[in-house]
Amino acid sequence: MNMDAPILTGSRSPRAQQVRSFLQQNSLQAWIAWRPDELLMLCGYFPFWGASFLIYFADAEPLLFVPQIEPRDHIPAELRVQDYPWGDLKCSDPYAVLVSMMGSVLDKAGAKPEDVGMNPSASRTSLPIQAAEQIPIPEGFAEQLSGLTAKPDGQRQTALADLYLRKTAQEIEGIRLANQVANVGLDAFFANLQPGVPEADVAAAVESAIYRQIGRDGIFHSRGWAMVQSGPNSALAGRFNRSTGRRLENGDLVLIELATCVNGYWSDLTRTAAVGSAKPEVAEILSLVTDAQQAAIDGVRGGVSAAFIDALARDKIAAQGLSAFFTHHTGHHVGFRYHDPGFLIAPGVSAKLEPGMVITLEPGAYVPERGGGARIEDNVLVTESGHEVLSRPEAAKRQGIRRS
Amino acid sequence: MNMDAPILTGSRSPRAQQVRSFLQQNSLQAWIAWRPDELLMLCGYFPFWGASFLIYFADAEPLLFVPQIEPRDHIPAELRVQDYPWGDLKCSDPYAVLVSMMGSVLDKAGAKPEDVGMNPSASRTSLPIQAAEQIPIPEGFAEQLSGLTAKPDGQRQTALADLYLRKTAQEIEGIRLANQVANVGLDAFFANLQPGVPEADVAAAVESAIYRQIGRDGIFHSRGWAMVQSGPNSALAGRFNRSTGRRLENGDLVLIELATCVNGYWSDLTRTAAVGSAKPEVAEILSLVTDAQQAAIDGVRGGVSAAFIDALARDKIAAQGLSAFFTHHTGHHVGFRYHDPGFLIAPGVSAKLEPGMVITLEPGAYVPERGGGARIEDNVLVTESGHEVLSRPEAAKRQGIRRS
Repeated sequence: MNMDAPILTGSRSPRAQQVRSFLQQNSLQAWIAWRPDELLMLCGYFPFWGASFLIYFADAEPLLFVPQIEPRDHIPAELRVQDYPWGDLKCSDPYAVLVSMMGSVLDKAGAKPEDVGMNPSASRTSLPIQAAEQIPIPEGFAEQLSGLTAKPDGQRQTALADLYLRKTAQEIEGIRLANQVANVGLDAFFANLQPGVPEADVAAAVESAIYRQIGRDGIFHSRGWAMVQSGPNSALAGRFNRSTGRRLENGDLVLIELATCVNGYWSDLTRTAAVGSAKPEVAEILSLVTDAQQAAIDGVRGGVSAAFIDALARDKIAAQGLSAFFTHHTGHHVGFRYHDPGFLIAPGVSAKLEPGMVITLEPGAYVPERGGGARIEDNVLVTESGHEVLSRPEAAKRQGIRRS
Repeated sequence: MNMDAPILTGSRSPRAQQVRSFLQQNSLQAWIAWRPDELLMLCGYFPFWGASFLIYFADAEPLLFVPQIEPRDHIPAELRVQDYPWGDLKCSDPYAVLVSMMGSVLDKAGAKPEDVGMNPSASRTSLPIQAAEQIPIPEGFAEQLSGLTAKPDGQRQTALADLYLRKTAQEIEGIRLANQVANVGLDAFFANLQPGVPEADVAAAVESAIYRQIGRDGIFHSRGWAMVQSGPNSALAGRFNRSTGRRLENGDLVLIELATCVNGYWSDLTRTAAVGSAKPEVAEILSLVTDAQQAAIDGVRGGVSAAFIDALARDKIAAQGLSAFFTHHTGHHVGFRYHDPGFLIAPGVSAKLEPGMVITLEPGAYVPERGGGARIEDNVLVTESGHEVLSRPEAAKRQGIRRS
């Protein structure tokens, strides 16, 4: 990502135009946001503490309230910013101060509660930079805020979630960077596929390589969640992903599920590889899944349905008699979160792909009686003419990211 | 932790007696729980996906509902367990199935909604084992559940939070293990304090050492969140903790904030050390903070107030004229979360320490004009006779944990 390019978060950016249009269509004068992924999508800001609140106005520049102890160096320069006393030992109720401040601002703007929207749920949020614990929203605070906002409205929340689907050029660069960093982690995965190495050690090496990208190429936040499953454990990977102390053995399939967050943008990848040469009974699974995933990728272009893409992968697996072992969807939207809101790439889903969408494609087959399972997952951008795989190493090389 | 010892989560355990007493005192026939830390506290189970739901009855054994794709090997054997179709591609609304199942169970038990409590908020939860994204509770699900439960009741939620304060012997062993693992991470911190090493590399080495403990000593989940700040960055550590690409220099103070979760139990530690010999203007800060923290630890025993302990540290720092640079509380409860609910160790807090409580003690001083800051944080168990520091390396050695 070229950090010298102007970051268009102001009112002229493509994203701002989408948000304004959302507000107008939903007869809203303002939207209050605090979920980390929602802040990133609305204004390009990824919070540190997760206790920042944005008022996005239909007809004025957005205003961001941040804890007084929030770092400032990655807040987009165009944003108007206001402190509130979160983190101040002398303030017994910073949230009450915040509600009062926001109420006053909305009042001056003439925005009545019935004209102000908000998603109060903390469910399925992206974690902020401080990722070890969810901070907002404390018990009682949602109720305090409810005095400033309309009753939660499912239709409006769905309309807001719809804004996640089509990424802007700038956001795509953010997701591309997350995938480039994830590939540095995957290099460590492949380098550690040696007999005797515990699954947890492989995963730790991957996460470490990702964390160490901080400070390079404009990266101020980089964190991976790697889960490695080997041999018989790989056959569980359709149900859950976790690393154990099991040591890799020659002929094992080894699967890594890897979530990566860079500067707020997410990559969601899976690779499966063998230690040495895969045992024949599992080599076939890996080969089949690899083919099925490539078939799905090859079909991606604007205008095709999610069900069509799903079938490209699912039919390949069914043709080999393994459909009972492909137990999940083929993909989902990705970028603002590990799993973005929006339609799944799954059977029966008639929604159509559009340029600017970024989806995962991740067919798998997990066959306990053969002692192995495989999944291959990439992140694919839908373009005007077809698609671009954001997560393949050649993309990283093209961008010239430094490897550790 | 001796994994061969019986895990007392059944109705005879000390924790079960506390929970039953809570239900009776609040005139509840049942409590529905899903937050990972709440599940761990109530029944010793730490969820993988974070989408498990427990019904804790006043007069029957608890019943746990888990996604059909939840791993089973760490669910306490005494718990009654029921699947629901979360993760089943063929089920369009697993939560509706779950609500129906739970409703049926409550109905059979004669528990009317007004007799069933629940904390619907996702705020400030511990992350489940799958720690990259919060899963529960989806939009709309809280509303569905509200048909089974009484209106959220702040007094009951406060009473439930009170149960977090006094840890049982078994829970203390869990927190001790988390601290032993954290110390393995801290070994990596001290080993990496070399000029030229970037902050992010130090932090990555710490997290890696912690992850690699999986599979040892009954450890099925081990994850660290390490944040390293060096030189002038350490002076920011009273506001936020994050690692950058800055390279350590001789004479720097280097501060690490380290959250560690092992099998669901948490440790929260801070260390500050110098690269080589600390520059005189910051050496004094480190020495002062070290003394202040030891003074607070030395004062810990049952019956003393939080404010008394806070003052032991705060007065030492004030005596050197640095009170303006100690900008936060001295401590908080810890163990079921990175930050447990309950009173702070802070000025003006009259609540008293009791045996079984586990608190952090973490005074600090951050002095930008001297180019450095320091904080020392340990986890301290209040005992009948005084205290035990769970987080000092000698405790780890005593327990014989293997180092990597």
